[in-house]
Amino acid sequence: MNAPLWRRALAELLGTGLLVTIVIGSGIVAERLSPGDVGLELFEHVFAIVLGLAVLILLLAPVSGAHFNPLVTVADALLDRADGRPGVHRTIDAVVRIVAQTAGAIAGALLANAMFAVPSAFSAHERAAAGSLLGEVVATAGLLLVVFGLARAGYGIAVVAPAVAAYVGAAIWATSSFAFMNPSVMLGRMFSDTFAGIAPASVPPFLAAQLIGGAIGTLLAVLLIPRRASA
Amino acid sequence: MNAPLWRRALAELLGTGLLVTIVIGSGIVAERLSPGDVGLELFEHVFAIVLGLAVLILLLAPVSGAHFNPLVTVADALLDRADGRPGVHRTIDAVVRIVAQTAGAIAGALLANAMFAVPSAFSAHERAAAGSLLGEVVATAGLLLVVFGLARAGYGIAVVAPAVAAYVGAAIWATSSFAFMNPSVMLGRMFSDTFAGIAPASVPPFLAAQLIGGAIGTLLAVLLIPRRASA
Amino acid sequence: MNAPLWRRALAELLGTGLLVTIVIGSGIVAERLSPGDVGLELFEHVFAIVLGLAVLILLLAPVSGAHFNPLVTVADALLDRADGRPGVHRTIDAVVRIVAQTAGAIAGALLANAMFAVPSAFSAHERAAAGSLLGEVVATAGLLLVVFGLARAGYGIAVVAPAVAAYVGAAIWATSSFAFMNPSVMLGRMFSDTFAGIAPASVPPFLAAQLIGGAIGTLLAVLLIPRRASA
Amino acid sequence: MNAPLWRRALAELLGTGLLVTIVIGSGIVAERLSPGDVGLELFEHVFAIVLGLAVLILLLAPVSGAHFNPLVTVADALLDRADGRPGVHRTIDAVVRIVAQTAGAIAGALLANAMFAVPSAFSAHERAAAGSLLGEVVATAGLLLVVFGLARAGYGIAVVAPAVAAYVGAAIWATSSFAFMNPSVMLGRMFSDTFAGIAPASVPPFLAAQLIGGAIGTLLAVLLIPRRASA
Repeated sequence: MNAPLWRRALAELLGTGLLVTIVIGSGIVAERLSPGDVGLELFEHVFAIVLGLAVLILLLAPVSGAHFNPLVTVADALLDRADGRPGVHRTIDAVVRIVAQTAGAIAGALLANAMFAVPSAFSAHERAAAGSLLGEVVATAGLLLVVFGLARAGYGIAVVAPAVAAYVGAAIWATSSFAFMNPSVMLGRMFSDTFAGIAPASVPPFLAAQLIGGAIGTLLAVLLIPRRASA
Repeated sequence: MNAPLWRRALAELLGTGLLVTIVIGSGIVAERLSPGDVGLELFEHVFAIVLGLAVLILLLAPVSGAHFNPLVTVADALLDRADGRPGVHRTIDAVVRIVAQTAGAIAGALLANAMFAVPSAFSAHERAAAGSLLGEVVATAGLLLVVFGLARAGYGIAVVAPAVAAYVGAAIWATSSFAFMNPSVMLGRMFSDTFAGIAPASVPPFLAAQLIGGAIGTLLAVLLIPRRASA
Repeated sequence: MNAPLWRRALAELLGTGLLVTIVIGSGIVAERLSPGDVGLELFEHVFAIVLGLAVLILLLAPVSGAHFNPLVTVADALLDRADGRPGVHRTIDAVVRIVAQTAGAIAGALLANAMFAVPSAFSAHERAAAGSLLGEVVATAGLLLVVFGLARAGYGIAVVAPAVAAYVGAAIWATSSFAFMNPSVMLGRMFSDTFAGIAPASVPPFLAAQLIGGAIGTLLAVLLIPRRASA
Repeated sequence: MNAPLWRRALAELLGTGLLVTIVIGSGIVAERLSPGDVGLELFEHVFAIVLGLAVLILLLAPVSGAHFNPLVTVADALLDRADGRPGVHRTIDAVVRIVAQTAGAIAGALLANAMFAVPSAFSAHERAAAGSLLGEVVATAGLLLVVFGLARAGYGIAVVAPAVAAYVGAAIWATSSFAFMNPSVMLGRMFSDTFAGIAPASVPPFLAAQLIGGAIGTLLAVLLIPRRASA
């Protein structure tokens, strides 16, 4: 992570942005080409996300570590602090990343809307329900467990990138919330009234579920792998 | 495998549990989103399992070796004994793992039921038939052959994890039993009356088939690769 | 390749046999679960083959080199001879392998039939036509080019195994013959009157196409990569 | 890149040609086997392309670097010049490659047409529209960013090959132009009036979009990773 702050920020902005473009864009294509067949639409959509996310992580990890997710950024800063590596520059880094991730996510949504000539409007897709919030806790816990577990075990990025993408693919299929797991990406998805959208009213409960799941997953990673492989 | 026993047990519990959650959860989603199209349902379900299992093995192999399956645990202990590495702690390890795997599998099934607001009840899905039992023997023999063959050949976990997951995906499609291959996971799947469930009455014959297949597969691995690459 | 001849033969028999079981078994499952939707059937079938073949190659390459195909065995022996490494034992090795591959393929077909309670009978699926024979030449040329090109370039088996499997998946979708590319496997597929079968009358023209394609592909590999990376 | 010029040219011709054969061939098979289900057709088509492209890159990168795309060839030559490595032989190399890529692409299209007994005629598939041109800019920018970003970060070909193929798969699903991204391949696709064809009238605007996107992507790669890992 020798890249200067502006390059790390650019990488987070681009990565989160293109991820959202892929999420929303593939949802629109699937919806248009497989109308009425929701299972097939989701299959196509997930297939595109798994492929695209693996590449984005590979591409940008050497620049910024490829967080693309405020939960990862915050947990990473807290874990560093717990390991005795605090510091003001660490906090600045985290704040800048989260701003970049969120700006990127919204820009990525607008870009997807523009490509497909879809008006940029809030999604009307209400997603919050007791079952789906439990699913979101589980999905997010798994994501943070996977991200920090693989990192602490010392795997290289060529393994971590496809593994994280594969986890996301499995989580979307296996949980009751379709696995949003990412506050910034969720915010971007609020701005597209298409397949992958989420209504603003569902965002606060989903965010709460993500925070709970994120904390659980991070703690599990530390519990299972107390010491970092490279430390 | 320097992790203490409780961490190995936690890893086996979490891994087997999340595997069952993915198996049952993806089955429910597939069933709901692709109603009436059983082939597509299975395709979506298998896709999620392959991705999820590969990640779970990668994640937990550094902690517990990622058995997630009593057949693997028992065969591993027996192979160690045959190589002159017996011992009481080895037996304790195996017993603890199997308890953790089974508890995890049942908890994973209940978690999937809870996420999707499905009542936890025994599955009514009878699966035992002459052809499917032969299929279960073949599938399980292949799994143990793959697990121990790849290990004995000396491949690293970054190769073994996706390979075992890929085998499971191929076996589900290619055999007449849908490839359960795992007593603990099967027990968990008994507790969900959904796509991936199995009726209690089918469990004993499937278990017998798995034991026969497991023995055949382990013997084939030893026959093909008599000495471990790293020994 | 330090394994004794009987182990190499067993590996070729098992590998070719299980490959045919996967090819035929996944065809039967796809046919039964997605009736009337030939595209989806082929998709499911190819998905299973790609996953299964990659694992079989990984598993058995350390024992026998994982040829599973008389064209590969013959071309390998000829290339060795051209490199000044002839010898009687080389010819014996090739003959034993081809017998093992063919016996394995037929056994694998009978096993698939038995699992699914399908009577073992000759396939009635006529496949030979001008366009499909051209497709078979192209597909087989590509297979041999990939197998020997990757080997000569010096890639390790962890790369070659998924790459060869991926090629097979692409070739089935992209050519007009559904890419049989393998005399022994084709012979096995003659014995199952199901999705993946081939009528005896189509076997001779397909064999001719495979021989032509195999020669072209092997020559292209030598032309592109004249010297072996490890020589 | 020690291979002589004629072998580099042959590799570019073969690689681009087989890529086009896979693109067009899989489109024809998908169209015939899944008639009326455009989403599933695209899914099958993209699946074949991802598998096939990964193998072609792996296979031919050791010979020619596996450009298969004039945009990559031109950008590569310009980046070398910017790094102080100009020279006449560099220009000759680029011209020869582009001729080989284009000849290969057209031959690949004619081969696909011949295999499937489709008359070789210009495609009637008009694809240019404001939204799709923006999509083509985005898709092509991403491709060049991925190709040069991964190369500059120092990843080996065993990682780059599947990553580039995965990117192409994601881009086809996520953008509004179906992600042509390659002038030579596009020219080849002009000669097949099938699923993957493009009408001659759409070629000039798509080419313009590709040039703009290619420039953006290359600049982004340099901006994010200013120095090459191996330099």
